[in-house]
Amino acid sequence: MPRRTLESLTWDECVALLGQASVGRLVYEDDLGPAAVPVIYGIAGQDIVFRSEGGSKIEALHDRTVGFEVDSIDEDTHTGWSVLARGTSREVEFEQLPELVRQLDGDVPIPWKKGIHLIWVTISPTSLTGRRLADFAFEGLL
Amino acid sequence: MPRRTLESLTWDECVALLGQASVGRLVYEDDLGPAAVPVIYGIAGQDIVFRSEGGSKIEALHDRTVGFEVDSIDEDTHTGWSVLARGTSREVEFEQLPELVRQLDGDVPIPWKKGIHLIWVTISPTSLTGRRLADFAFEGLL
Repeated sequence: MPRRTLESLTWDECVALLGQASVGRLVYEDDLGPAAVPVIYGIAGQDIVFRSEGGSKIEALHDRTVGFEVDSIDEDTHTGWSVLARGTSREVEFEQLPELVRQLDGDVPIPWKKGIHLIWVTISPTSLTGRRLADFAFEGLL
Repeated sequence: MPRRTLESLTWDECVALLGQASVGRLVYEDDLGPAAVPVIYGIAGQDIVFRSEGGSKIEALHDRTVGFEVDSIDEDTHTGWSVLARGTSREVEFEQLPELVRQLDGDVPIPWKKGIHLIWVTISPTSLTGRRLADFAFEGLL
């Protein structure tokens, strides 16, 4: 019988895992209740960075506390990890953009939909929690 | 230059896609703001079904409106789909369980962590929205 363990991740482990993926979910509340939509993101320093179309729902979230969730789950073995960041969603000012792009670790994140007016959004995590689920199927034999 | 399109999905398309995956994200609000955690789920009729440990945060969400997000995104081509359900989270009563299990399409969903007291949770979607992102790289040539 496999023994499954769920371990909490440290801040640094969460930061490292955020840097490994490129698709996350912006988590927020709208008129119908709790909502989440996937976005393609990058990391600049410890900030989560993504681009969005101007005029979208996401633009309405600026300066509000949002969540950002990233996970990697193996659907067959049901092992993997998840990270949940919470912080304030901010639109990047035009004059801050060159410095942000310079800090980006990797490629410039692609917006989900190409629009005429694209805005850049950052989330600076004030809370960062995560967990890893492992299946120690052969633990008893070691 | 590839043209990327984002199409909205119908209720029936969302239902069909929910039936294809086995990992989704429960979306809710806690003391720190909007939150999402992955869970392994199944489908019974049009209900989302998962198991959770008693005494957990998830148990505190019963009879509240929650979100449930499922997506499948290709990180290389950045194409894929996402579905967002909203509905009330309900704990399944002991006497309802046999009927629920009979209705389950596929395997009984595995709880994320094995505990002594496992509860079954259903979400009956009252709102179901989704979108599909496609890259029509060669559209100009057709």
